[in-house]
Amino acid sequence: MAKFMVIGERIHCISPVIRKAIEERDPAPILKRGKEQLDCGATYLDANIGPAEKNGEEIMQWMVQILQNEFDNVPLALDTANTKAIEAGIKVYNRSKGKPIVNSADAGERIDNINLAAANDAMVIALCSAEGVPRDNDERMAYCQQMLERGMEAGMDPEDMLFDPLFLVIKGMQEKQVEMFEAIRMLTEMGLKTTGGLSNVSNGAPKELRPIMDAYMVAMAMQAGLTSAIVNPCDKKLMEAIKTADIILGNTLYADSYLDL
Amino acid sequence: MAKFMVIGERIHCISPVIRKAIEERDPAPILKRGKEQLDCGATYLDANIGPAEKNGEEIMQWMVQILQNEFDNVPLALDTANTKAIEAGIKVYNRSKGKPIVNSADAGERIDNINLAAANDAMVIALCSAEGVPRDNDERMAYCQQMLERGMEAGMDPEDMLFDPLFLVIKGMQEKQVEMFEAIRMLTEMGLKTTGGLSNVSNGAPKELRPIMDAYMVAMAMQAGLTSAIVNPCDKKLMEAIKTADIILGNTLYADSYLDL
Repeated sequence: MAKFMVIGERIHCISPVIRKAIEERDPAPILKRGKEQLDCGATYLDANIGPAEKNGEEIMQWMVQILQNEFDNVPLALDTANTKAIEAGIKVYNRSKGKPIVNSADAGERIDNINLAAANDAMVIALCSAEGVPRDNDERMAYCQQMLERGMEAGMDPEDMLFDPLFLVIKGMQEKQVEMFEAIRMLTEMGLKTTGGLSNVSNGAPKELRPIMDAYMVAMAMQAGLTSAIVNPCDKKLMEAIKTADIILGNTLYADSYLDL
Repeated sequence: MAKFMVIGERIHCISPVIRKAIEERDPAPILKRGKEQLDCGATYLDANIGPAEKNGEEIMQWMVQILQNEFDNVPLALDTANTKAIEAGIKVYNRSKGKPIVNSADAGERIDNINLAAANDAMVIALCSAEGVPRDNDERMAYCQQMLERGMEAGMDPEDMLFDPLFLVIKGMQEKQVEMFEAIRMLTEMGLKTTGGLSNVSNGAPKELRPIMDAYMVAMAMQAGLTSAIVNPCDKKLMEAIKTADIILGNTLYADSYLDL
């Protein structure tokens, strides 16, 4: 089994610091967050530049280059609704440390992003939804099948598709969580890779509870087969969960110092 | 789904304090540990009186009565190799808060303890082993089947059998852990209840790591279907894991204060 893939979520234009840095093309705040996340154990960095309707191509190229130049060609997820910006980013992307990830496709309006990934030998995050939250696992799996077929028709290796079952908030959708584990299990039994935005699950819970809920959720999802997640790698408790689950599942070899590695 | 059943392990004659208290028939140290465990959230208390070859019957009756008198007929697991002592304990046991648990039977020399449980309308912990550690899940499941048949022939409700897949130490048997989750899943899919001695898993690991490893292990095992465990309920981290997994799995209703309940 491979080690869990941690995609660091903290370079995101929803953060005022990052948005300002992008506007001013100021690398420093972005590189600071990149370094923090890599120091904490991120495998990939997500680079979210927002809708980027204006100058998206130039912004994404700038983003890819400052990060890869600073961090020895760190592998990146290119995250924007502007597909031209993703393509532009891939053009300057160095894949020596890992393929770029297109973030993201779905089974609805964004399904063509699978073809974008295929055409550029990239990976893709494939959300098991079309509009809003899937009603049940029949719907989730139908979307998955649709995207898988689209990818295979386009010549993708299914290994390059990361299926996101859509994690849902516990407080308010408590009854949906078991189903979500079952979806991960089904995807895993199909031999597929999985990912997801984990911090959703603890939305609305008291601040001190959120890292606890996120941590056990990721460990339990890993037991069901989850192979990666988009998270804050500087959440110490969450990384403790991921590293311990990796040990328990045999994804990394046990050492007494495993938490420090 | 039912709330996870926490069987408190701390009244155990391997502890010098408890052994001395048993020898001197001094209730105080035993009641102190009983109270601590119940305060921390134990559902059942395990009462381990050791081999108890001498006076076992009298000792177990004394133990059952001091605990049930003090703690409003708290349900107990009667834990000793002396089957006559278990029978004697059940004779004075008040089942208003839950059936007594015979701890334990296996598929080898102790298989008759299943009949002991059946004859006394008790529950039983059924270890999926005969001699030593089962080689693989074929062996585990064969033992399970054997014990299940024995119980059903004796008129037991399968609900009253808690199958223990045998948790194994991570450090040294890392490659056995996934198989153990699969065993829990198979038992769960058969509609069976499961339990286990969790603290084994972190044996030999540094002291500060043990609660961490135990906590994620129990959450991951609960995701696979584990319905109870024999643990130290005063391990705060472990109870945090159990309570959070119960919330995530929908076994208890979410409340912002769920950790304090």
